Amino acid sequence: MKGEEIKSTLMEYNLQSWSKQKSINPISVEKAEGIYFWDYDGNRYSDMSSQLVNMNLGFGNPAISQAIKNQVDQYCFVGPSYGAESRAILAKKIIGLMPDNMGKVFFTNAGAESNENAVKIARMFTGKHKIFSRYRSYHGSSFGAGNLTGEPRRYTLEPGVPGFVKFFDPYVYREGIEFDSEELASSYYLKKLEEQIQYEGPDSVAAIVMETITGSNGILIPPKGYMPGVRALCDKYGILMICDEVMTGWCRTGKMFAFEHFEVKPDIVTFAKGVTCGYVPLGGVVVSKEIAAYFDDNLLSCGLTYSGHPLSCAAGVACVNYYEEADILTNVNKVGQVLGEVLEELKQHHKSVGDVRYIGLFSAVELVKDKETKEPLVPYGKDPKGIMGKITGLLKERKFMTYTHENMVLVAPPLIITEEQLREELKKLDEVLTIVDQELLTYA
Amino acid sequence: MKGEEIKSTLMEYNLQSWSKQKSINPISVEKAEGIYFWDYDGNRYSDMSSQLVNMNLGFGNPAISQAIKNQVDQYCFVGPSYGAESRAILAKKIIGLMPDNMGKVFFTNAGAESNENAVKIARMFTGKHKIFSRYRSYHGSSFGAGNLTGEPRRYTLEPGVPGFVKFFDPYVYREGIEFDSEELASSYYLKKLEEQIQYEGPDSVAAIVMETITGSNGILIPPKGYMPGVRALCDKYGILMICDEVMTGWCRTGKMFAFEHFEVKPDIVTFAKGVTCGYVPLGGVVVSKEIAAYFDDNLLSCGLTYSGHPLSCAAGVACVNYYEEADILTNVNKVGQVLGEVLEELKQHHKSVGDVRYIGLFSAVELVKDKETKEPLVPYGKDPKGIMGKITGLLKERKFMTYTHENMVLVAPPLIITEEQLREELKKLDEVLTIVDQELLTYA
Repeated sequence: MKGEEIKSTLMEYNLQSWSKQKSINPISVEKAEGIYFWDYDGNRYSDMSSQLVNMNLGFGNPAISQAIKNQVDQYCFVGPSYGAESRAILAKKIIGLMPDNMGKVFFTNAGAESNENAVKIARMFTGKHKIFSRYRSYHGSSFGAGNLTGEPRRYTLEPGVPGFVKFFDPYVYREGIEFDSEELASSYYLKKLEEQIQYEGPDSVAAIVMETITGSNGILIPPKGYMPGVRALCDKYGILMICDEVMTGWCRTGKMFAFEHFEVKPDIVTFAKGVTCGYVPLGGVVVSKEIAAYFDDNLLSCGLTYSGHPLSCAAGVACVNYYEEADILTNVNKVGQVLGEVLEELKQHHKSVGDVRYIGLFSAVELVKDKETKEPLVPYGKDPKGIMGKITGLLKERKFMTYTHENMVLVAPPLIITEEQLREELKKLDEVLTIVDQELLTYA
Repeated sequence: MKGEEIKSTLMEYNLQSWSKQKSINPISVEKAEGIYFWDYDGNRYSDMSSQLVNMNLGFGNPAISQAIKNQVDQYCFVGPSYGAESRAILAKKIIGLMPDNMGKVFFTNAGAESNENAVKIARMFTGKHKIFSRYRSYHGSSFGAGNLTGEPRRYTLEPGVPGFVKFFDPYVYREGIEFDSEELASSYYLKKLEEQIQYEGPDSVAAIVMETITGSNGILIPPKGYMPGVRALCDKYGILMICDEVMTGWCRTGKMFAFEHFEVKPDIVTFAKGVTCGYVPLGGVVVSKEIAAYFDDNLLSCGLTYSGHPLSCAAGVACVNYYEEADILTNVNKVGQVLGEVLEELKQHHKSVGDVRYIGLFSAVELVKDKETKEPLVPYGKDPKGIMGKITGLLKERKFMTYTHENMVLVAPPLIITEEQLREELKKLDEVLTIVDQELLTYA
């Protein structure tokens, strides 16, 4: 099949995620390399969101590709109760990258399942049933992960699973209070969280689940002192701290895992995406030694056919080794600094840019009607005039491919991007923001 | 790593599904071919459960292997909103294999996620929230799929998702009533089901979810008239009929899909496992044209990073084509007949065999203490003396690898097995059943 036939066939026979099917318009991809991919007419596009923030190493990484082929030649699959070398190597490797309190990995197919199983494990280990998570968050869309999710994509799952409790994120930019310092902001949010724990009853709270840095809901970076404060509350009340590193793990933020920025040790870490860059589906749950030991003699009531899939794990071994061997962190921190500088310039020069938030190569541009009032470019949960779609369209005309969420444009390119490539792409974003300033602000 | 190191590394760093971790004893697999696999000491094992009833074509199928390598050379991944040829081909292919009422596929990573999304789709389409499923069933272990599941593996997820209702399976062998015919049995079960629908309130019931033929919970084959009767109840009350074909799909039972045995057209079909034989994780939800059309203008509030993963779909295309090109159904029906004959002989000759149930190459041997009273060899949900583990061990000594569930031994070899291979393996089962008759019956 060629481009048009692929598109029409998909529109006839395939249901596309998160869409009204009449509105979809998929670009058929013929080839892909590094940060670029091409349609069947030879047009080149730049992947400025690493697809769904999973392709940390871009397309066509030869080490991962070869590892997949080698594993195919041994075998693609044996079940979770049989020993596969790639699973053993990857499990050991991952624990080696974790803080010294971490013990074992339970492998899954992807991020949602990782969060599903993290909740199950937390409930089994603690014997408690309430699970705290935050409003501006996305943890997946299956029933368990989707009930952790705080944003509107959870509504389909209501009435929800009993015991899932939401609290507010440290979203300083939109808090109705001016804080004199990050520490004071943290102190405010932590006090509110503790109050909520007390009202819910600490003895019934099994875990607090957070994206270490909130991803699609706006790259919300916790203020100084917030994460250690949550850790302290968890310790005080016997609550497990679960960090969802599905987007933020594997070098994305300039550390191997984002919690390293905040000098905290979680009890459970969930991961997916960057562990294989999505070359083969894989996710997992890392648990502390203490939790791991509990399951020595207690049944781990978790399971799936493809837990520790040998082909997925082979891709994972090659991918994780590549981060280290190619010193990807150095590039993320170097190019990430440029990203931050350019985003700050965009904020200065564009009246539609209310805030920019960035860490490593993980960033968002938050658009407003008015910088003073901070009124969002589109109201929360709605975009009746299709403004954000128009912005995505303007970027797409320039072959700058990313996605938006509410009033925010995500910029999270593959971690192999060079400074030159990044500057070239951000010029396109600059152009589009000028159009937003001049045309869309009044239209909105 | 070699065998022992793989095993010890896994025991140190990996959590194994459904296990107390101190009790695990994984065989490390070095190579695998057809229905056999080998450990690092050169011992050959026969895979008599197709791993977890997913490896329908056995290990090392060259067509699937080559398709994976070819897709790696194009690209491993593009996101669900981009067009990938393998996804388009597979979606069209699958709809072509379905009854004429079916319209589109939503791809997932595996069976649990397929069932999760089937429930979400049914609720969105009907606007109703109650979901019926059966006690002796397994649909996955994430919160949504696990709440569909009726057997004890769901307990960890309690208190469950509101609106999930359980009814009883047509388990004729253990019903406390003697039926003069299959039709009378069906009539009894259907009357009970209708009564339960009425008491729950038909206007709130979105869907009835069933494994078309119950798998791990005992290969429960619906009696004549049952499935058309459920279909009629669904039509009468505006309820969607969802067939879980995760195990039974893709030739396992002697038809491409098991619902074809019963001449019914479901509204939604979930699949996984055999679509790729697990070479790469893949699952999906097939929906009727009517349901598909609903999502033309209504948001499909389902999504996952790897929906329609190009590498998974490439494996799927090769795998599904292979079923047809190699005429796998003919082998299943031919060798399946032998399986049935031998199982009936085993039932005749062994006092520990209470019942045998089989269809295609999908079968279970149900063990009892006493054929007359039908008292199970081990009580439901318990096995304090580890009897079933001993039986698995005796089979393992003979390199006959399968799993047991409650008081049942599953026999579901790869669909490429020859009559000669099957007869050779079933002799081992015969030997072990003799030991059960002579030693374990009194011990139990």
